[in-house]
Amino acid sequence: MSDFRGLIVAVSGPSGVGKGTVLARVEQLLEQANPGSVGHSISVTTRAPRGEEKDGVEYYFRTKEEFEQMIKDGKIVEYDKYVENYYGTPAEPLAEMVGKGQDVLFDITIEGSLALNRKFDVDTVTIFILPPTMEVLEKRLRGRGTETEDKIMKRLDQARSEIRRAGEFEYLVVNDDVDKAAREILAIITAEKLKASKNINTAKELL
Amino acid sequence: MSDFRGLIVAVSGPSGVGKGTVLARVEQLLEQANPGSVGHSISVTTRAPRGEEKDGVEYYFRTKEEFEQMIKDGKIVEYDKYVENYYGTPAEPLAEMVGKGQDVLFDITIEGSLALNRKFDVDTVTIFILPPTMEVLEKRLRGRGTETEDKIMKRLDQARSEIRRAGEFEYLVVNDDVDKAAREILAIITAEKLKASKNINTAKELL
Repeated sequence: MSDFRGLIVAVSGPSGVGKGTVLARVEQLLEQANPGSVGHSISVTTRAPRGEEKDGVEYYFRTKEEFEQMIKDGKIVEYDKYVENYYGTPAEPLAEMVGKGQDVLFDITIEGSLALNRKFDVDTVTIFILPPTMEVLEKRLRGRGTETEDKIMKRLDQARSEIRRAGEFEYLVVNDDVDKAAREILAIITAEKLKASKNINTAKELL
Repeated sequence: MSDFRGLIVAVSGPSGVGKGTVLARVEQLLEQANPGSVGHSISVTTRAPRGEEKDGVEYYFRTKEEFEQMIKDGKIVEYDKYVENYYGTPAEPLAEMVGKGQDVLFDITIEGSLALNRKFDVDTVTIFILPPTMEVLEKRLRGRGTETEDKIMKRLDQARSEIRRAGEFEYLVVNDDVDKAAREILAIITAEKLKASKNINTAKELL
C-alpha cells in the first residue's frame, strides 16, 4: 500500500519532566501493537569502552579523529561533547531502520531534535514535553534527593530557557500523567504516518 | 491551560467510500470520551421547508436574495447548488462552536473541505478517505442496488478524478475497516490539538 517508512520521534524537554519514563511507555505500546516495529539507535562515542561493553552494542567506539572525520563526511546527524568526549547519532543505521519501517525514538537535547528534523525532514516528528506546572517540575527535581539547592535552581533556570524554545517543536505534550502523555505521543505517531505528504502513493496506487 | 479551541474536521472522499458511517463512529467516540464536545453545523438553504422542518433546526431557511447577500458578506464559508437551490455552511455559528471548544465534523465535497481550510486555517484539518481498492468501491456502489450500470460507471469515473486530488488534503485515511478508520481520525484530531502552533500558550503560561 504505502511505502511503510518508519518515523523518527525526537523528544526533548527539561530535565525532570519525565521524558525517559514516557518514552519507555510509548515503546512498550508500539511493541505490543506491532512487535519489532521499534528500532534503537546506537550512539557513536569517543570515550573508551567500559567493562564488557562491545563495539556496536552499547556504542560504536571511535577515536576522536575518526569521529571528526564522520562529522565532516555528514555521517553524524547530531552530536554533543560531554567531559571531553563526543557522543553522536550516526546517520546510516538510522536511515536503514526508518527505511525498513521501524520507528526510532530519541530522548534528546533541543539542538539534537532540530538537527534530526533538518536532516531527515519528512521522516522526523519533533515533540517537546512540558511539565504541568513549574512547581511540579521543581518537586520532581527535589524528589531525586541527589542535588544541591544550587544545582536545583540552575536546573530550573535551564528548564525555563528550554521551555521558551518549545515553539520550535511541532508538537507539545504535557506530562501530567505518564499513560496519557504516552497515548498522546502514539496519536501523534499515528497521525504523522497518515499525512498525505507521507503516503500519497496509497492514493496513486488505486488508480 | 491552552485555549481549548475546537477543531473543524473536513472529510471528503468518493461516493460509496463510507464517509458517513466512519464519521458517525468518530462522533460517537468523541462524545463518549467527552460528552457535549461535538458541535453540529446547520446548513443554510434556499429550498422551502418541508413538513415539520423549522428554521434553525434542520436548516436555516433563507431566500435566494438573502443567501446571495450572505455570500457577498463573507457569511457563507462554502456552498453548493443542487436542483436550483443553494446549500451552504454559515460562518458565524461555526466560529462560535469552535470558539467554545467543540469539534465540528463535516462530510463534504472536496471544494467544501478546501474552502473550510482557507477560511478557518489553523482550526481546520482536512482528511480524504480512500477505499482499500477500486474493486471494493465498485462493490459498495453496486451493493446499494439502486443505481443503473451507467450511473455506477459515472460514479467510478468521478471517484477516480476525486482520488487524483487526494494530495490536496492534509491526511489520507483508508476505510478498510470502519472502526480502524474512525480511530485513525481520532488520532489525527488528538495530534492536531497538540500542535505547537495551536497551543503555544500552554508553554507560555508556565513561565
